[in-house]
Amino acid sequence: MIDQRSNKPLTPWRRMTHDIIFEAETPAGRAFDIVLLISISLSVFVVILDSVASIRAAYGPLLDALEWFFTLVFTVEYAMRLISVRHPLRYARSFFGVVDLLAIIPTYLSLFILGSHYLIVVRLLRLLRIFRILKLAEYLREAKMLRRALRSSQRKISVFLLTIITLTVIIGAMMYVIEGEANGFTDIPTSIYWAIVTLSTVGYGDISPKTPLGQMVAAIVMLLGYGIIAVPTGIVTVELSRARTSVSTRACQSCGGADHDDDALYCKHCGEKL
Amino acid sequence: MIDQRSNKPLTPWRRMTHDIIFEAETPAGRAFDIVLLISISLSVFVVILDSVASIRAAYGPLLDALEWFFTLVFTVEYAMRLISVRHPLRYARSFFGVVDLLAIIPTYLSLFILGSHYLIVVRLLRLLRIFRILKLAEYLREAKMLRRALRSSQRKISVFLLTIITLTVIIGAMMYVIEGEANGFTDIPTSIYWAIVTLSTVGYGDISPKTPLGQMVAAIVMLLGYGIIAVPTGIVTVELSRARTSVSTRACQSCGGADHDDDALYCKHCGEKL
Amino acid sequence: MIDQRSNKPLTPWRRMTHDIIFEAETPAGRAFDIVLLISISLSVFVVILDSVASIRAAYGPLLDALEWFFTLVFTVEYAMRLISVRHPLRYARSFFGVVDLLAIIPTYLSLFILGSHYLIVVRLLRLLRIFRILKLAEYLREAKMLRRALRSSQRKISVFLLTIITLTVIIGAMMYVIEGEANGFTDIPTSIYWAIVTLSTVGYGDISPKTPLGQMVAAIVMLLGYGIIAVPTGIVTVELSRARTSVSTRACQSCGGADHDDDALYCKHCGEKL
Amino acid sequence: MIDQRSNKPLTPWRRMTHDIIFEAETPAGRAFDIVLLISISLSVFVVILDSVASIRAAYGPLLDALEWFFTLVFTVEYAMRLISVRHPLRYARSFFGVVDLLAIIPTYLSLFILGSHYLIVVRLLRLLRIFRILKLAEYLREAKMLRRALRSSQRKISVFLLTIITLTVIIGAMMYVIEGEANGFTDIPTSIYWAIVTLSTVGYGDISPKTPLGQMVAAIVMLLGYGIIAVPTGIVTVELSRARTSVSTRACQSCGGADHDDDALYCKHCGEKL
Repeated sequence: MIDQRSNKPLTPWRRMTHDIIFEAETPAGRAFDIVLLISISLSVFVVILDSVASIRAAYGPLLDALEWFFTLVFTVEYAMRLISVRHPLRYARSFFGVVDLLAIIPTYLSLFILGSHYLIVVRLLRLLRIFRILKLAEYLREAKMLRRALRSSQRKISVFLLTIITLTVIIGAMMYVIEGEANGFTDIPTSIYWAIVTLSTVGYGDISPKTPLGQMVAAIVMLLGYGIIAVPTGIVTVELSRARTSVSTRACQSCGGADHDDDALYCKHCGEKL
Repeated sequence: MIDQRSNKPLTPWRRMTHDIIFEAETPAGRAFDIVLLISISLSVFVVILDSVASIRAAYGPLLDALEWFFTLVFTVEYAMRLISVRHPLRYARSFFGVVDLLAIIPTYLSLFILGSHYLIVVRLLRLLRIFRILKLAEYLREAKMLRRALRSSQRKISVFLLTIITLTVIIGAMMYVIEGEANGFTDIPTSIYWAIVTLSTVGYGDISPKTPLGQMVAAIVMLLGYGIIAVPTGIVTVELSRARTSVSTRACQSCGGADHDDDALYCKHCGEKL
Repeated sequence: MIDQRSNKPLTPWRRMTHDIIFEAETPAGRAFDIVLLISISLSVFVVILDSVASIRAAYGPLLDALEWFFTLVFTVEYAMRLISVRHPLRYARSFFGVVDLLAIIPTYLSLFILGSHYLIVVRLLRLLRIFRILKLAEYLREAKMLRRALRSSQRKISVFLLTIITLTVIIGAMMYVIEGEANGFTDIPTSIYWAIVTLSTVGYGDISPKTPLGQMVAAIVMLLGYGIIAVPTGIVTVELSRARTSVSTRACQSCGGADHDDDALYCKHCGEKL
Repeated sequence: MIDQRSNKPLTPWRRMTHDIIFEAETPAGRAFDIVLLISISLSVFVVILDSVASIRAAYGPLLDALEWFFTLVFTVEYAMRLISVRHPLRYARSFFGVVDLLAIIPTYLSLFILGSHYLIVVRLLRLLRIFRILKLAEYLREAKMLRRALRSSQRKISVFLLTIITLTVIIGAMMYVIEGEANGFTDIPTSIYWAIVTLSTVGYGDISPKTPLGQMVAAIVMLLGYGIIAVPTGIVTVELSRARTSVSTRACQSCGGADHDDDALYCKHCGEKL
């Protein structure tokens, strides 16, 4: 069933299927992508509604039917994808191939295992496909820029995260000793959780220091959080501003000036045509 | 009553009314704008006071009278606007035309429908007129710059919001499975609400994870929130710094192009010396 | 007692007193400033300790004595300042003159009015003097830069604050209608308070939406808060980076190049001595 | 036992020990560092697990044994470090020398003092060694850049912290007077704690204003917090962007000055062509 010969041309109808499913430039491909996007959103919406007790009580069977309908549609789609690509195994092992498979398995599993209620969440990974569709459509060049900015500051972010983790472990242990189990800091992991809640300025208040010393340490942690929250912002801002400026580096052939805007037709330094 | 002929000059008194109501450069226009601004603020203040039980008990009739007084004043003003503009229908269909109408309807409605108490909130849209007045007065050129910076990063912000929504849906569903209904995560919508409360670092604490696994996932979400909160800040900062440098708009005498850099010697559009 | 003749030289001992109290360059002036800074800190510390019930019970009379001691010292200092300046009235009416007076009044008032316990807080304004001392000592040139950056973005910040206030009033009224008094949104002012708590990402959780619609609106407000919190950060960052670069604008006399660093001795464009 | 003669070459085996323990370039040194990093992480993990009541009940003796095992390993390592360096006393007095000693003391102390349970937290300082290892491996040049950016904005940050502290003391005292002990603002230190919790946008909600006036002041504090949180972010961003541009350090061949801009053609220190 699966065609593994790599260089032979695909049969016309497989080529057509491929064009519709994988391409987004043709009208048919674009229409398919939009239908898929709506289907994914609707199927996720059905799962979300199904989790609300009152709605499940009233429309349970309808929601189940819809879930099965979407699962069957996505199963057919998955089979079509496997058939129409030149290297089905390579697709099946790719990130989106795995996501496509995981998106349909939980519903089938619920036939055999009763408790597979918990696996429904995996279906939400389908949402990631929305981004693929958007990307295929060349709709969002910006996403690429954002991702590039984030990737180029990856190492700085790792150092930052390592510092945060070390800090929260030390602060957590300290607060466990200062506040103790009586004040809600039941163990070091819980205290670390508190430290992260505080440093990130989320501040639920489910655990909060009660002793004067604990409140003093907490206050210092918050002032520290001020500076710490500034670091990732600074990193991302610098990377973004760099991504922006490095987008347009055409050098003038006459004077060599390079800091032209994207829409510049003439060199702003010597007036030569670019 | 409404004059639809477009090119004929307005009658003198309509011209004068127009100058007073719509212009802000003349002394009369400026005075009218200031009175209007104060009236809007006062009428909103009356509505706010009216919502406080103790004040309503003591001064209810006075506040009702004031509300009717302001509604009548704004009704007259609305009629004047319709009469004095050249294209009343165009004004009536414009954003501020609709706002002006919505600002007076709820009070009249309360005569016929008893429960229109809830529609009073629409009146608060009048506050938006403050910005129009300020803009007319050329008082706040900065607002334009801020809006331009926000608009030019609109696409990046959409990608960002889409990522946030996808993320919160996946995190929400995950926490619903991990924590369950017993710990306050009653359904997926509530869990998504929790995810947004956490990612945005608001952290009410009305819902908070109780299980160790849930607290671990929450901690990861918070660390993620660190990076995520940095993205819009970075975007806006870069756009603002770009808006600032492009403010110095020298227009080219040859082609009229205006978006030159500060250090540009030649027009980048036509190559003419600036 | 007060010498109002403006151009006559001060008597030697008044000149000396002035040098000690107002100058910070001489050894005596510096020593005086340091002693004053420590006294202010200690006197504020005494007031803070006095507010703690257990400490007041144990050391009440001692703290009262210390408060009187500091008040007398600052009274003498205030008199010395009045005597030693050339224009005592001008000093008395200046910001720090008023602060110096307000800092000693509450303790004297407590002799006549029993409830002047509430006025003790005014004494904390003495802390502002710390900044004057630090400034006199030329210790903190950075403070000036920070203040300049903040001042030059004052107009942008006003527009921003006005938008925030309009937004919170509209959101507050909306949530008052949606959630109602039963869910803690007792009146519009309280709802506005909730809106500010949420938009600023503080999120106490003393008031939080209970209805699904209210939680949805709150989620949108939080996503809005994401973007809104980015604006002041962007403004301050751009102003700070501008303040930094505009600090050193020496133009080269030979080629006119102007973007030199503070420590540059030669023009980096043509090599000419600056 | 300790060799204090500074210029004599070390004996071969001491040189080898030094290379393994202190160097990270050689295969043996790298392997040692990785083993050490894992050991430190594991030993901290053991302490964390030991704090969880249920785990301590089940695996208490095993965790105690592991803690002793790691302590003995680190003791041997500490001795090796002392022996292999040329100046043992200088090492012992250095920051990491003290940390290495503090990391092994608490376990030994628990033999003599029963309550030394509280000293276990000091062991977490071992985690700081992770950073040394990473640095030795030249793995994280970024950490240096981050630290440089933070250090060069140290003075601005001090001014900022001083302002925050003054502000929180004044706000804290004000809220103590407004809300009073009945509403949770039991004394000025607690009120200052509340002010920091609010200004840093953490917002636990363990203490929150109840009176209308208190809520109004709190709302103003939050709006203030908007601007205040922007300042450290702005500072760090500007410093980071400056650090980035000054990274390209071409040294002058004539005077050796290295902090030239990217577009410099001549040395700004001596005027020599670069």
